[in-house]
Amino acid sequence: MPRTVTAYSNPLVKRVQGLRDKRHRREEGLFLAEGLRILTEARETGRVPVYLFYAAASARHPLVLALVEAVEARGGEAIETIPDILSKLSGKDNPQAVVGVFETFETALTALDRHAAPIWLVAERLRDPGNLGTILRTGDAVGAGGLILVDECVDPFSTEAVRASMGALFTVPIARAPWSEFLAWLRGGAGQLVGLSLQTEQGYRAARYDAPTFLLTGNEAQGLPAGYERECDLLVKLPMLGKADSLNAAVATAVMAYEVLAQHRK
Amino acid sequence: MPRTVTAYSNPLVKRVQGLRDKRHRREEGLFLAEGLRILTEARETGRVPVYLFYAAASARHPLVLALVEAVEARGGEAIETIPDILSKLSGKDNPQAVVGVFETFETALTALDRHAAPIWLVAERLRDPGNLGTILRTGDAVGAGGLILVDECVDPFSTEAVRASMGALFTVPIARAPWSEFLAWLRGGAGQLVGLSLQTEQGYRAARYDAPTFLLTGNEAQGLPAGYERECDLLVKLPMLGKADSLNAAVATAVMAYEVLAQHRK
Repeated sequence: MPRTVTAYSNPLVKRVQGLRDKRHRREEGLFLAEGLRILTEARETGRVPVYLFYAAASARHPLVLALVEAVEARGGEAIETIPDILSKLSGKDNPQAVVGVFETFETALTALDRHAAPIWLVAERLRDPGNLGTILRTGDAVGAGGLILVDECVDPFSTEAVRASMGALFTVPIARAPWSEFLAWLRGGAGQLVGLSLQTEQGYRAARYDAPTFLLTGNEAQGLPAGYERECDLLVKLPMLGKADSLNAAVATAVMAYEVLAQHRK
Repeated sequence: MPRTVTAYSNPLVKRVQGLRDKRHRREEGLFLAEGLRILTEARETGRVPVYLFYAAASARHPLVLALVEAVEARGGEAIETIPDILSKLSGKDNPQAVVGVFETFETALTALDRHAAPIWLVAERLRDPGNLGTILRTGDAVGAGGLILVDECVDPFSTEAVRASMGALFTVPIARAPWSEFLAWLRGGAGQLVGLSLQTEQGYRAARYDAPTFLLTGNEAQGLPAGYERECDLLVKLPMLGKADSLNAAVATAVMAYEVLAQHRK
């Protein structure tokens, strides 16, 4: 039976609000996701929130009812609340109908089956949560096996990353590893490591990609370290016809990923 | 001779801070851009701030000196200040060395020369400023003739859009028009209107693009209205292999733009 919370001072409300902060997410092992569509997608992949907040006005929506049922069946708690508290929780003026608190999860690098998909995305020192989420969303679209985060990247469970992923956080496996560990794992089997670089004359369209292709994107401001580029099987560049010398990292990753997909499908 | 401002209560500081708000930008006809690289790019395209704020610590940087000189030569004002005020102005914890206040500008649709470039980007009811800026940045990279904003789009001079454009706001012409006006202008000359759509079986790789190609991207949540799709010469879709049914709007635009670019270059 859902309880009702309408006070900002409610300790759970304060605790959940705190999850917009990385330190709290790490300490609690919990993160926030919002929106009926995303939470329903999460449920379909077997991820159910430990706390589910929903607006009283949405209480009879069939998707809300299905979420409440799933949460309670798993021993979680469904909480009816008011739009202002949903705003507080999500940090948005126009809150979604539901906010869920999920346990963080992660896939071990060694648990990835590289033959499960022809494309894998690898990001190195990615800094922007919107980029991370957008790359996950693209990964879902191109059928990527997963996203491997190399070295110190932004937290994939940050509210902005979760939002930008539009649910792909729940469908695309994420592994994290230092470069040396990633490289050792990669070289333990098949896989073409393709780095996006400005230090090459090799155009991305003329290059040939062999599955499984691991697409490596570097830090937004600095690109890939030279030592990492040297370990790549192939460096490719995108044409840059204007004044700028680089694209947004999520955009560059997507243009590359769709090229690889098109070649694999031929 | 630059003056020095160190008080938060300074009226100009308050006024400039207000430019993060759309209403103030519209009333004043001014907007904010930050960062040495972007301001230098703006200067190279002939756009010079009316007010230039820079950190005292950067006063001798050659690019800052060049900016100060350009600003004063145009009758603008250069203002030496402290990092905390730069933070206040830009709304960022780690401010850039310079913040510039520019006059807003815009290109009339009728002033665009469609034969000046083989690719043009068109966005309809774009809502997210980060997407708008990222699309401008991509437009610069693919050599787009400009970005045409159809119907009510987010303000291209919002601080987030300017930031995401990484300077492309100054290099890619922007025109705004209601749909009917855009369509009348487009049909007054050559131009293939290509809409990104979910309502077609035509894959984007198999389609053929004729210059000048006008790539039309719809609203992030709703895509293009059916009536607008009917006016397109071609509707194309990107493969979506995962659970999601759409890509980020800036990502989809970029994948399309690079495909068109590759075909034109063949």
